[in-house]
Amino acid sequence: MKQTIEQITPTNKEAGKKTRIHLNNLTKPQGSLGRLEELAIQLAEITGDSFPTISPPASIVFAADHGIAKEGVSAYPQEVTAQMVYNFLSSGAAINVLTKQINAMFEIVDIGVASDLAGTGFVRKKVKYGTGSFLDENAMTRAEAQEAIEVGMEVAETMIDKGANSLILGEMGIGNTTSSSAILALLTEEKLENIVGKGTGISEDTLQLKREIINKALVNRQPNPNDVLDILSKIGGLEIAGMTGAMLKAASRQIPVIVDGFICTISAILATKLSKNVSDYLIFSHQSQEPGHCLALKLLDAKPILDLELRLGEGTGAALAFPILESSVKVLKEMATFSTAGVSTEQKSKKL
Amino acid sequence: MKQTIEQITPTNKEAGKKTRIHLNNLTKPQGSLGRLEELAIQLAEITGDSFPTISPPASIVFAADHGIAKEGVSAYPQEVTAQMVYNFLSSGAAINVLTKQINAMFEIVDIGVASDLAGTGFVRKKVKYGTGSFLDENAMTRAEAQEAIEVGMEVAETMIDKGANSLILGEMGIGNTTSSSAILALLTEEKLENIVGKGTGISEDTLQLKREIINKALVNRQPNPNDVLDILSKIGGLEIAGMTGAMLKAASRQIPVIVDGFICTISAILATKLSKNVSDYLIFSHQSQEPGHCLALKLLDAKPILDLELRLGEGTGAALAFPILESSVKVLKEMATFSTAGVSTEQKSKKL
Repeated sequence: MKQTIEQITPTNKEAGKKTRIHLNNLTKPQGSLGRLEELAIQLAEITGDSFPTISPPASIVFAADHGIAKEGVSAYPQEVTAQMVYNFLSSGAAINVLTKQINAMFEIVDIGVASDLAGTGFVRKKVKYGTGSFLDENAMTRAEAQEAIEVGMEVAETMIDKGANSLILGEMGIGNTTSSSAILALLTEEKLENIVGKGTGISEDTLQLKREIINKALVNRQPNPNDVLDILSKIGGLEIAGMTGAMLKAASRQIPVIVDGFICTISAILATKLSKNVSDYLIFSHQSQEPGHCLALKLLDAKPILDLELRLGEGTGAALAFPILESSVKVLKEMATFSTAGVSTEQKSKKL
Repeated sequence: MKQTIEQITPTNKEAGKKTRIHLNNLTKPQGSLGRLEELAIQLAEITGDSFPTISPPASIVFAADHGIAKEGVSAYPQEVTAQMVYNFLSSGAAINVLTKQINAMFEIVDIGVASDLAGTGFVRKKVKYGTGSFLDENAMTRAEAQEAIEVGMEVAETMIDKGANSLILGEMGIGNTTSSSAILALLTEEKLENIVGKGTGISEDTLQLKREIINKALVNRQPNPNDVLDILSKIGGLEIAGMTGAMLKAASRQIPVIVDGFICTISAILATKLSKNVSDYLIFSHQSQEPGHCLALKLLDAKPILDLELRLGEGTGAALAFPILESSVKVLKEMATFSTAGVSTEQKSKKL
């Protein structure tokens, strides 16, 4: 882990400058493609290539269970985590459909599902059969937290070695908005009312319970906000740690990471606490409906690309944003310049 | 024109209801795909098919000149309209790149470029060699306004007959934000400061001039806000009329129209003034940087899909939104249901 973190350098601003100059010569008013131009520049800086390539992307879904689910904080029973892994394997979930649409590679990682999963076609890297319920005990040991980060690194590395030029990270884990909300509350000291939301769709009563549980858990666990492994081991999740690891590895390899919703943004916050350089490698795909997500994005000074009122996870928001990133790169590479197209520029106009 | 308008029926709410029921059975929390679900329902209502097909789309760019450009309201000289048509023909413009990305059909229409265009590969339907400068004279005659609408209808019809299952409408015309701003000022009586923007990127001085010209033009022309042909003939544009016509024809054929930015939204406002039913057939792709666009969208009670700070036109925002519409349809058609995937539903959870 330490070695990967050390390998994360600042992004290449020189490559970005060249991209900006080229964008300004294309047959359109300067800056008129707005965020598309900013994204093209960021992708150039990340990859170190003024004409970057981000296809094929790889969608990686980390699945794990949360002991806290037994407290009744979710609208769905814990067994849904495993059931959804099977659904991913038979291509029936939203992320499957969206992954196929963008011709992405796809991988599912059992990093901590509470039951033994049958079959093949996924990465078996179970660190633990779900976390402990952090109301009563630590979610995992410090060693397990580190192991989960390293699993994320390893899977990201494998996908990059197989040819992925960008990563779409997602998760599945009943109870994981509770863990994420607890982490955000710890790091921001914001009131729980402004953080904790309805997740997959719980009632007002359950929402109240969820807030109380997080409150109690934070008192009981006392995680050190300056120690990522302490946070993860006391109130974290295995899939959250896995996504953090994948982000670190991708950054060390100069591969852009498309960050999904609330849970994934929490992983991003933890990654930036481990490496300041990592944030420039992250592209925030969307603003979700989960109230904590807005706060989490603010903490990272991140401006998401989409706001489609999503609250699903799995990497779906990141996959939906991918075509826009691809557009930014295609426009950069394929548009004509003023001189090659013989179009008059703004300057010529002023002379008239 | 009258016949097409009479053929525009209300959209099919029954088809939308069936879509909603199916979406609620898919393996995701109900409503968790947010606007994607709303869009799938709207597309079902438009097409009358609960599992709608919107591919291939057709991008149609209407090009025309504006006499008002001679007053110096644009950052670019009038000749750029024709130069950009040649750029479209040689696939060098942003809309070309984005059209190719989404496998769309493509058509350019010379509906009123000020010069004779050489070559082939576009629709020659020049109604007039650019409009008159509406500071001093009417932009066009009433008959020309009607003819331009009918050209738009005809081109839309041709593309639909060739197999287009949705339309992306865009425009090219130096000076057309001035015409659009004048129309919006007429229809909303909003202060020009809140409407008129920098278009392709004019200076503060030119912006001031642009506002004064619009003000004077409205006084000089006195268009009747309740008469679309009067508005178009006095202060309109040929490409604006063309897009209005294309919207009306698409609606009469139950084909969804993806509306681009400011100019295209003005066409949409005119279309809804000709047929109340047409608005349900329109999907608003993005919020542009042009200040009047926000107001124009409000007038239509429209909620755009994207906000990417674009200010280019050509249909680029509509093309960028297309993959999201395609996602909404794919998710609807390809995801597994709770029962087929064997995933526990929320209700089961409550029993636990």
